[in-house]
Amino acid sequence: MSEMFVGIDLGGTNIKIGLFDSELKLLSKTSVATKADMGPEVVIGKMAQTVEKLIAESGLSLQDVVAVGIGTPGPARYTEGVIIKSTNMPTFKNVPICRMLNEKLGAPIVFDNDANVACWGEYAVGAGKGVKDMVFFTLGTGIGGGIISNGELVHGCDENAAELGHMIIYPDGRNCNCGQRGCVEAYASADSTARRAAEALEAGAESSLKKVLDEKGQITSKDIYEHLANGDKLAKEITDGTAKALAITCINMLHTTEPKRIVFAGGMIAAGDILLNRIKDFFNEHIWTLKKEMVEICFATLGEDAGIIGAAALAQHAKQQGKLC
Amino acid sequence: MSEMFVGIDLGGTNIKIGLFDSELKLLSKTSVATKADMGPEVVIGKMAQTVEKLIAESGLSLQDVVAVGIGTPGPARYTEGVIIKSTNMPTFKNVPICRMLNEKLGAPIVFDNDANVACWGEYAVGAGKGVKDMVFFTLGTGIGGGIISNGELVHGCDENAAELGHMIIYPDGRNCNCGQRGCVEAYASADSTARRAAEALEAGAESSLKKVLDEKGQITSKDIYEHLANGDKLAKEITDGTAKALAITCINMLHTTEPKRIVFAGGMIAAGDILLNRIKDFFNEHIWTLKKEMVEICFATLGEDAGIIGAAALAQHAKQQGKLC
Repeated sequence: MSEMFVGIDLGGTNIKIGLFDSELKLLSKTSVATKADMGPEVVIGKMAQTVEKLIAESGLSLQDVVAVGIGTPGPARYTEGVIIKSTNMPTFKNVPICRMLNEKLGAPIVFDNDANVACWGEYAVGAGKGVKDMVFFTLGTGIGGGIISNGELVHGCDENAAELGHMIIYPDGRNCNCGQRGCVEAYASADSTARRAAEALEAGAESSLKKVLDEKGQITSKDIYEHLANGDKLAKEITDGTAKALAITCINMLHTTEPKRIVFAGGMIAAGDILLNRIKDFFNEHIWTLKKEMVEICFATLGEDAGIIGAAALAQHAKQQGKLC
Repeated sequence: MSEMFVGIDLGGTNIKIGLFDSELKLLSKTSVATKADMGPEVVIGKMAQTVEKLIAESGLSLQDVVAVGIGTPGPARYTEGVIIKSTNMPTFKNVPICRMLNEKLGAPIVFDNDANVACWGEYAVGAGKGVKDMVFFTLGTGIGGGIISNGELVHGCDENAAELGHMIIYPDGRNCNCGQRGCVEAYASADSTARRAAEALEAGAESSLKKVLDEKGQITSKDIYEHLANGDKLAKEITDGTAKALAITCINMLHTTEPKRIVFAGGMIAAGDILLNRIKDFFNEHIWTLKKEMVEICFATLGEDAGIIGAAALAQHAKQQGKLC
């Protein structure tokens, strides 16, 4: 009997599934459309069938699977294994996903939110490998977060820790979707970066981005980093605002759980060193002088497989900790 | 044989020592002058003698002591048991305090920084009792911090976590002693609260505090809270700034390790409800609307014994975790 782990990344559009060996090597993976409108019973049924098919195609059987890990966006009661609701899957309300999937597959199910899962993936086999204290940010529509302290994910009293995008860095600042003002997410997510540029253009700022906005009706953070590379002044101002907001947040995390490594993931890291080096510049400019800080700020390495790798890695960790039910 | 624990609070002025039973009930306590200028060998020798005397006076012997806990200000390598240096005890440089004390007393020594120790005391038997996730702030000359996540202190990668006073809440704001700008400590410690008021008076603000400053040459946070109670407008403005800075920091901690309880300690909590309620007001005004937060914000209950209680409680915890050497 082999010792395999399955990792599932349940998103509003697709369900990604990966089969991993005991070294967390990806053996095979697949993706199916979620079609959440069919309801949780159908979606979870299809998920189970796809897992079984993937295992069979690898010449294995369900008995070879030690545990299945699954990540979804919240809110959920992770320990209980229940999705409370989901913005992208409106039919999912109080769905006991772990029990339902366990009934179909037999294997124990390990469940966490998508940001924690991706964080754990980077920690186990990606950019966080080799450290015990790590902080993780995803820069996308919003800013997601994960914290690993002394080798364990921080879940908090109500399983809602590490909402790092909602740390307030400019009190009474920009409105955030969460109802707060001045959250780092309102400045430095990919969407907020684009929105700040659009607002500046609408207020009359001169920039080569004006043409993009006029032609496409919108601009993206990708556009802004491209125009930054071409020397556009507004792009510089906007991306500096993004990097500074992220740097201040890194400093605040350093003074909180004191990570050895801070890992950025998400679509906006495609901007590359022009983003990473600027975060480091602002970090060095704003950090205290009491002691020299050696925290490493870097980009994630797992790409779009982080979700399935992290889910499988979490399942393996639960096994190693004797926490599988 | 009884199962006793000793808690030691090593400060620049005094060494406080308490003897505790296995329920962490204080049996007896004493205090001696530190006289750090005599050097670490003498200070630690006196510390050991005082412990022995306290135990003997209780009709017990060193064999009854399971472990000794000790807290000091940093910087130190706590796991190694070495004080690197000390602002208030300049003769203490690279002092292997745990080994030295262990050689004299025989009992295992558990060592941590004073803020963590006080945090653990409140967690074990004070305002944090009954929760597993807690955040702790001391409001004194500076702002110290402690974090308990899932029932354990957060130490960080270099044993320097929870420097919560140095979270930046106003980027490019007031200068902090640490070399950063905009730290919460630069606004909301007892000293910074007093300093902000003095600066406003020097800039010409009208206030009943002017007379205090003129007569005493300085004002304290105590003066400001007294004048607040009497309706002084500047006192209101300054203390609102303090409460708001602390509230923003509470929100940021909620989004980080998600404590169930946030406990404030230190001299300034003598201000009472007029401070606590204002922190809660600003918290409620600035917190997100995504979900109703139930975090309890409260004051510490152990007073000046927190240091010895926390040190003994940490020693007991190490015993329970099988971590005594």
